[in-house]
Amino acid sequence: MRAVVMRGGSLVVDTVPDPVPGPGEVLVRTVACGICGSDLHAVQHGPEAVAALAAMGARKVMDLSRDVVIGHEFSAELVEYGPGTARGIAPGTAVCSVPMLPRPDGVEAIGFSNEVPGGYGELMLLAREMLLPIPNGLAPALAALTEPMAVGVHAVGLAGLGPHDVPLVIGCGPVGLAVIAALRLRGAAPIVAADFSPARRALAERMGAHVVVDPAATSPYASWQEAARARTPEEAAPESMLAPADGPLRPAAIFECVGVPGVIDQIVQGAPSYARVVVVGVCMERDSFRPMLALGKELSLRFAFYYTGPEYAETLGAIADGRIDVAPLVTGRVGLDGVPGAFTELAHPDRHAKILIEPRR
Amino acid sequence: MRAVVMRGGSLVVDTVPDPVPGPGEVLVRTVACGICGSDLHAVQHGPEAVAALAAMGARKVMDLSRDVVIGHEFSAELVEYGPGTARGIAPGTAVCSVPMLPRPDGVEAIGFSNEVPGGYGELMLLAREMLLPIPNGLAPALAALTEPMAVGVHAVGLAGLGPHDVPLVIGCGPVGLAVIAALRLRGAAPIVAADFSPARRALAERMGAHVVVDPAATSPYASWQEAARARTPEEAAPESMLAPADGPLRPAAIFECVGVPGVIDQIVQGAPSYARVVVVGVCMERDSFRPMLALGKELSLRFAFYYTGPEYAETLGAIADGRIDVAPLVTGRVGLDGVPGAFTELAHPDRHAKILIEPRR
Repeated sequence: MRAVVMRGGSLVVDTVPDPVPGPGEVLVRTVACGICGSDLHAVQHGPEAVAALAAMGARKVMDLSRDVVIGHEFSAELVEYGPGTARGIAPGTAVCSVPMLPRPDGVEAIGFSNEVPGGYGELMLLAREMLLPIPNGLAPALAALTEPMAVGVHAVGLAGLGPHDVPLVIGCGPVGLAVIAALRLRGAAPIVAADFSPARRALAERMGAHVVVDPAATSPYASWQEAARARTPEEAAPESMLAPADGPLRPAAIFECVGVPGVIDQIVQGAPSYARVVVVGVCMERDSFRPMLALGKELSLRFAFYYTGPEYAETLGAIADGRIDVAPLVTGRVGLDGVPGAFTELAHPDRHAKILIEPRR
Repeated sequence: MRAVVMRGGSLVVDTVPDPVPGPGEVLVRTVACGICGSDLHAVQHGPEAVAALAAMGARKVMDLSRDVVIGHEFSAELVEYGPGTARGIAPGTAVCSVPMLPRPDGVEAIGFSNEVPGGYGELMLLAREMLLPIPNGLAPALAALTEPMAVGVHAVGLAGLGPHDVPLVIGCGPVGLAVIAALRLRGAAPIVAADFSPARRALAERMGAHVVVDPAATSPYASWQEAARARTPEEAAPESMLAPADGPLRPAAIFECVGVPGVIDQIVQGAPSYARVVVVGVCMERDSFRPMLALGKELSLRFAFYYTGPEYAETLGAIADGRIDVAPLVTGRVGLDGVPGAFTELAHPDRHAKILIEPRR
C-alpha cells in the first residue's frame, strides 16, 4: 500500500507492505485521518514522544530507527476480518475506533507503532471489539474528528465542573476548540475563550464560546472576572481565609490548550484563588512556573492526555446527532502526496484548525 | 513589650509598644510560638513572601520597610478583653486561634502584619470569635503545634483519599511530619515516607509512617510500588488505556513536603500513572518540570497552603486527646534572646523538627 512514513525524523511518501489482520483484528481502508499536533511533535521531537509513551506505561514503544506510519485520528471502511474473528459488521461499512490494538504481547498504540500502520496509510488494522460503526448521516470523513473531540470531552470530564463554574479556555487551536465543544455539550455557560488569531477566535465562537478574547487587546483573566461575577451567594466560589478584594466570583475552571513553555506560569499568575486548571496542551519541552503563586492560591493542575472508550463512543454519538458540529474545523483536505506540504502549512497555526488526509484523494 | 522584630531583612530583639485590643479583640500573653519555615522564608525572601500574600488575595500586605513581629504558630493566655467585646472565657485561660484578625479594613495575617504583632513577642491581639480554649490536660506550649499540624490535616483532606490509596510522603521536615500525623489520623495504611536525614526518619516512624525510606539507599518510588501492590481487583487503581507493565497497583497519593526546586519534577518522573500529587512544601523560587511526563501519566498537582477554621479546631482536638502526639516534634525551646541563634541552627535541618519560642523563658 501507499503510506506517509516517518523515517529518520522526516516524512516520506512510499510503498510499504499491506498489513495482514490476525485473530480478533480487521483490515480497514482509511477514509480520512486528521493531522494532530502530536504527529507534528512525533516528527519534530521523536525522542521526547518516545519518552512520553514509556512514561505512560506502554509496554511497546516505537523504535524511531525503524519506519512508523503515524496517524491516530482516523475513520475507515471495513475490508475483511482476520482469522477466527467475530463478524457482524458488513464489509464496506464505515467504522472508527480508539487508536489502540490489544495484542497478546501488549497494546499497540496505532499511529505510534512499528508493528501496525496508522491512518497516514491506505490500509490499517483495528481491533474487532473496539470497532464502532459510524452512524448513518455522518460523513465518514468527519468521523475522523471523533478522536480529537474526545480529548476535549475527557478534559472537561476531569475538570469536575460544578453548576456555577465559569470556564476559561486559553488557546483555540484544535485542542481548545475540542474543549469548547465539550463545554458547550455539558451546558457550561458562559464559556470564555482566548486566542491571538482572529481565525481561531471565529472558530471558537462557532464551536460555542460565549465570550471571545484577543489577549493582545484584553487580559483573558480580566474578561473572565467580568463574566464570572457571582450574582447570588450560591454561585460564589468558596472564599479564601483572606478576604478577596473585589467581591465574590464564581468558581474557575481554566483549560491550558496551548502547550508552549510559559503558558502554565501565565495561568498560575492570572488565575483566581482555588481555580482548577486542566492542562491539555502538549508541551514537549521543560517548563517553569512559580510554585509559591500556585500555593498562595491553592490551585490544582490536572493533566489530561487521552480519553476512555466510553468517552470516545459518547463523542462519536454527539458528532453524529449534531450536538457537536465538526465541519467548521476542517480547514484543509489533502491526499498522501500533500502531507509533507500540510506539515509545513501547519507551522503557521493561524491558517488552519484541522487538515484531513484522504488517502484515496 | 519585648519582641523579636523583623527589620530590614534581619531579626533584632527590641522593645516595642504593647498592643491595645479594639472591639471584638482580646489581649493575650504569648505562651509559646513555633518557628515555621515560612518565618525563615519571610526573613530570607521577604519580597517573594509579600508577593505570595498579595497572590492569596490579601487586602493588606506587610510593608517590609516597617517593623514586623512575625510568628503565627502560637498558644497564649487570655489577659483582657477589648472594649465592647463578648466575654465568656476567664482571664488566665490558655487559648489558641487561627492566625487571622478580621478588622473593618480587612483581615490582618497575624505574623505577617505591620499592624498587629505575631507570636515572637510577649503580647498579641486575637479575635474573640476565633478564640479556642486549650483543652485541660494539654500543655499550653504544645498547643502551639496546632497550626503546623492543621496544615497536614488540610493537605490530606485535599488529597481526597480513597479507601485503597497508598500515600507517599516526600520529605519529613515539620510539614511532612504533619502530613504523616494527619494520614495516620485518617487510618491510611501503609504510609510510605522518605527523607535523607536519619533523625527525621525516626520522627516519621514515631508520627506513624509504616515504611520509612532513605532515598540515598532506595528509591522511594520503588518502595512505594512494593507497598502498593494490589492484592484484589477492588484495590487496584483505574488502569491506563495502555496496560501497565508489572501488575496492578493501588492508587497513589504523593505529598511533596520539601519545597526545594526540582522536587516536583522528581515526583512527576517517579510517580505512577494517575497519581494525585499534593504540593505542601513551600518553594519560593521558580521551579521547572516536564509537562509531557505529567500529561503521559495524567497526574494531578494540588497545591495546599493553609487550612480552614474547622480543620484547625479538629486538629487541636486530635492533639488534646492524644490521637496526634506532638511532643516528639519539639526538639528545642528558646527565649526571645535565643531566636536569632535558633534561625541559624535551623539552617541545618537535620538537627531539628520544631523549635518553640517561649517569651517568658
